[in-house]
Amino acid sequence: MALMHYPVVNRNGDIITSAVTNLDIHDMSRAAKTYGVKAFYIVTPLMDQQQFVKKITSHWTEGAGAKYNPTRRKALELISIKSSLDEVVVDIQDKYELVPKIVVTSSRNFGRKLDIDNFRTMLQSDGAYLLLFGTAWGLTEEFIKSADYLLEPIKGGTDYNHLSVRSAAAIMLDRLLGV
Amino acid sequence: MALMHYPVVNRNGDIITSAVTNLDIHDMSRAAKTYGVKAFYIVTPLMDQQQFVKKITSHWTEGAGAKYNPTRRKALELISIKSSLDEVVVDIQDKYELVPKIVVTSSRNFGRKLDIDNFRTMLQSDGAYLLLFGTAWGLTEEFIKSADYLLEPIKGGTDYNHLSVRSAAAIMLDRLLGV
Repeated sequence: MALMHYPVVNRNGDIITSAVTNLDIHDMSRAAKTYGVKAFYIVTPLMDQQQFVKKITSHWTEGAGAKYNPTRRKALELISIKSSLDEVVVDIQDKYELVPKIVVTSSRNFGRKLDIDNFRTMLQSDGAYLLLFGTAWGLTEEFIKSADYLLEPIKGGTDYNHLSVRSAAAIMLDRLLGV
Repeated sequence: MALMHYPVVNRNGDIITSAVTNLDIHDMSRAAKTYGVKAFYIVTPLMDQQQFVKKITSHWTEGAGAKYNPTRRKALELISIKSSLDEVVVDIQDKYELVPKIVVTSSRNFGRKLDIDNFRTMLQSDGAYLLLFGTAWGLTEEFIKSADYLLEPIKGGTDYNHLSVRSAAAIMLDRLLGV
């Protein structure tokens, strides 16, 4: 899976590069590890933000944190830092010799959608899937429309639909891979 | 539901009062609102921590944040701050004229457990249930054993089981109330 900090939109719909949030890294890598996700990519084109992520992950995977909290290390070891979706796809091809299908999530409505239960079944067959989550107010419409699949949004039984990306990712992994 | 900062244990098993985490307040109130939870209690006996929570919630429910982000306001309006579980129970009795059954969650293993699917069915009938989440390394064993029900832990299909309380709460609400 990958957490995208570009291209995303802000509250006004402008295309921006969002800042990396420390707890996204921790919460989402722990959820990824819990649900058996193979790799977790943090995607940002900004070099200082890449350095920020590297500093956090290396503290827990190589530094004092690795000794203090080995379970945290196991989660953060899933993380790779990349500048773009293209770089992520190349990395997956290099490591697994598979071309992943791109699956995006969005709480917004953009037409054609893949049922979560159907995607759960697809994950049990062969092939590689790259599940993308957007930060800020979500991935751009153009980016979403260029993906192979758009997953149906999570519904909570109310008309309120404003989960954090951390919560949405945890719930989506549970629906797709939970036992 | 309630987020307990006492009595919880630290990594060594000592009973402590944990510090309130800003993002717990935001993520869990947004998930609560999404899944139609009636109230979200933040429980800490420490006055300075109660003030910290009050400062955050009032910014978003009464201050500049309320105007800037009305959807955040709706989530944070679910929050009440209490010093203890007893105070929470009294508040529920006062507001709803119901005595809630106490349901705790734990990733650790303490014997007798309520199946999540069974609890989902119970929630669809009458009665009030108060779902408790622990911070730090979780609620104390004594506290857990005094509850009416202990929910089975969330499983992710691996032997790794270290979700943040934010992720665990989101997943549990989805399993109990998701559509």
